[in-house]
Amino acid sequence: MVGADAAGMSAAHQALRTARARGRDLEVVALESSTHTSYSACGIPYWMAGDVGSGDDLVARTPEQHRALGVDLRMRHEVTALDLERRRVEVHDHEAGTTGHIDFDELMLATGAERILPEWSRSPSGEPLPGVLPVKTLDDGAAWRRLLGGRPGRAIVVGGGYIGVEAAETFARRGLPTALVTRGAEPMSGTLVPAIAAAARRGLEELGVEVVTRSEVLALGRGDDGTRVACVDGTEYRADVVAVGVGVRPRVGLATAAGLPVGGERAHGALVPDDRQRVADGVWAAGDCCSVEDRLLREHWFVPLGTHANKAGRVAGENIGGGTRRFPGSVGTAILRSGDVELARTGLMPMWAHASGLETADAILESTTASGYMPEASPITVWVLGEKGTGRLLGAQIAGGPGAGKRIDVLATALFTGMTADEVAYLDLAYAPPFSPTWDPVQIACRKLAERL
Amino acid sequence: MVGADAAGMSAAHQALRTARARGRDLEVVALESSTHTSYSACGIPYWMAGDVGSGDDLVARTPEQHRALGVDLRMRHEVTALDLERRRVEVHDHEAGTTGHIDFDELMLATGAERILPEWSRSPSGEPLPGVLPVKTLDDGAAWRRLLGGRPGRAIVVGGGYIGVEAAETFARRGLPTALVTRGAEPMSGTLVPAIAAAARRGLEELGVEVVTRSEVLALGRGDDGTRVACVDGTEYRADVVAVGVGVRPRVGLATAAGLPVGGERAHGALVPDDRQRVADGVWAAGDCCSVEDRLLREHWFVPLGTHANKAGRVAGENIGGGTRRFPGSVGTAILRSGDVELARTGLMPMWAHASGLETADAILESTTASGYMPEASPITVWVLGEKGTGRLLGAQIAGGPGAGKRIDVLATALFTGMTADEVAYLDLAYAPPFSPTWDPVQIACRKLAERL
Repeated sequence: MVGADAAGMSAAHQALRTARARGRDLEVVALESSTHTSYSACGIPYWMAGDVGSGDDLVARTPEQHRALGVDLRMRHEVTALDLERRRVEVHDHEAGTTGHIDFDELMLATGAERILPEWSRSPSGEPLPGVLPVKTLDDGAAWRRLLGGRPGRAIVVGGGYIGVEAAETFARRGLPTALVTRGAEPMSGTLVPAIAAAARRGLEELGVEVVTRSEVLALGRGDDGTRVACVDGTEYRADVVAVGVGVRPRVGLATAAGLPVGGERAHGALVPDDRQRVADGVWAAGDCCSVEDRLLREHWFVPLGTHANKAGRVAGENIGGGTRRFPGSVGTAILRSGDVELARTGLMPMWAHASGLETADAILESTTASGYMPEASPITVWVLGEKGTGRLLGAQIAGGPGAGKRIDVLATALFTGMTADEVAYLDLAYAPPFSPTWDPVQIACRKLAERL
Repeated sequence: MVGADAAGMSAAHQALRTARARGRDLEVVALESSTHTSYSACGIPYWMAGDVGSGDDLVARTPEQHRALGVDLRMRHEVTALDLERRRVEVHDHEAGTTGHIDFDELMLATGAERILPEWSRSPSGEPLPGVLPVKTLDDGAAWRRLLGGRPGRAIVVGGGYIGVEAAETFARRGLPTALVTRGAEPMSGTLVPAIAAAARRGLEELGVEVVTRSEVLALGRGDDGTRVACVDGTEYRADVVAVGVGVRPRVGLATAAGLPVGGERAHGALVPDDRQRVADGVWAAGDCCSVEDRLLREHWFVPLGTHANKAGRVAGENIGGGTRRFPGSVGTAILRSGDVELARTGLMPMWAHASGLETADAILESTTASGYMPEASPITVWVLGEKGTGRLLGAQIAGGPGAGKRIDVLATALFTGMTADEVAYLDLAYAPPFSPTWDPVQIACRKLAERL
């Protein structure tokens, strides 16, 4: 195992379980260059916000716990080269300062992804400029905690994706005057349709975040009073701290140096595994260094999410342990909180469907999360996309109050199984006044869509 | 249309829409014996509790609104006989005091269900004894509101099903010392497995409700101090008001008098429609007077829920209007709040599966609704049942805090489409720390179950 976070350790433990169940001997060595294993990167913004008391709470399993379960885990061991011919890896031990080799029968790559730092945000050597901080690793989180403890004056968040929105939410809740700068027409507009993305903006604005759209930071300077100044298009914003969340790229340097191929287009240069997570004979990969197959278009996409890393890691582990397990693919499901607004998505954006030659129609519905007469009722907007002719559901997005977001799972399940919008409309979903109108909003939206398909 | 509540009016409006879309002439007469149309019976306990300000809020559409949409709605018109040979109904107009006939081409029966009153609770003429009140109609709700306004001393709720639990919750939240008496080992034990039903009890007890199980009221008398006394097995309970929620039976007197057949066993004497909601040539039925087909066992069950009434009514209406629409069946989904506990179910109980010759295994999982380190995280218990050999999911039940209950919809969708437990485990469901652990609890429960199947 190269890398000991979600995918790597899911694979390690599953491989051991499967091998044991089959009476096979298996020795698992996991090599991790950092000082952390198996932490929830997704929890970092909430740790920064103070929702989570200690960084330790984000650690699913400590190195000692992994070892107790039978994994030979070596921390601060950085793999510096793969030799697929001779079946061995070159490893540098940062503690001992030595470099050696480890032989393998099966190799698992779980090298993850690395933050992208725009040119204005880094020094010539590639390090973030003073005051600039990414939101990616536990160490980043710890740096933010120290910074936020010292009450910095103003924050700029660059990037309108998941990390950007979560970071802006965090700063606003910590009481910092915050601006979010995004190139999109709205935050999240890369993956959310305008009506839903507008709710993302609303959620942030209700928290007091200034949302600057269709803009980007061009340079970072220093003002007369010594504070930092970000030049956003023509305007200057004073900023004591700048959070960068403009995405990540798959960390595949070792793999490509060893001659392994990577995908282009929507796979964004990630490794492209088969459905058993194999990238070459005896070489497996999972997590943010990999693409995942989209079930709807059967294309490989770069979707660096913890859910896929855990599932794909487990699939790889089962196959490494001697079993047979196939990764069933993703439908692009994701969820996010933006202030008091819950946002969720699954499936295709209209333009992705059109690019693949699908003819579509959509529908949008405004309803309430509970029966309208109940005090629990809060607004919910459901957008759905379907294919003309077949009537098949292709995508869905939701914005709303408490209880709105996780309704996406019904639509994700429907996409996963290839249901039509009409079939979703007649599902037997749970109703009682504190939980839903008689017809769940996702059903009414699909009924409306079915009439248009 | 005989009956103008959920099923009847869903059918009426859909029939008109479908007929109009097809350029067909259709005149819809709806005959309703009571003074109310289209109200949310499920909302009555919350109206009693004071969550809902006015009974009018429970009315989805007033008679005037129905008429404005083209339905010839006649209130206080009671159908007293069906003549299927001569294609006419006998109608008594309670306002005018006259009786006449109306001819029909197509007849729709939506006569609903009637409350069951145990012998101890009614006078020889069949009326509830003083102090005894059912929880069924808007009029019942109004009577409860008056009673609760007068601060009665103590309440006994008889019946541990949905209505009983909701009524007990209502009384307790209104500050009444309340006891709930049920024949079952736990409240809801008719449709919930012990581990989940125990949570129903816990929810009530946390509200201060005294839960008396494996017991029933045998008689209602009057104590020395003039208050009412319920004799529950060997013990006497003082009770100023007694709520009866021991179930309903299909109201099919008109139909059986006209020679229409009804179902036995699990159909509980309800009309058994085909999948277009037809019960005889040109005769349609939907709602609580009907059974619904269970998709898992392909049996007809009496499941008097508003969700089925609305869907089946709409199906009947589309067919009456000249379209073709089939009711896809139920999987037995339901949800309930018991104090602060959310309870939900779908699919089969183990004994129902066994009675049909299915070999099963089950699994139960304790997890949290959000990532364990988040302040939003509350406990969730997920129980799942599957078929040995095929691996097919057969049933699921959930108990837990906010956000737990509606997760049942994913499992209801999985049952609806015939997924295996293993397939559910690898669904692409939404994850972010405020909403779920990385693997949703429903997935982990299904993974555990899949290992046992």
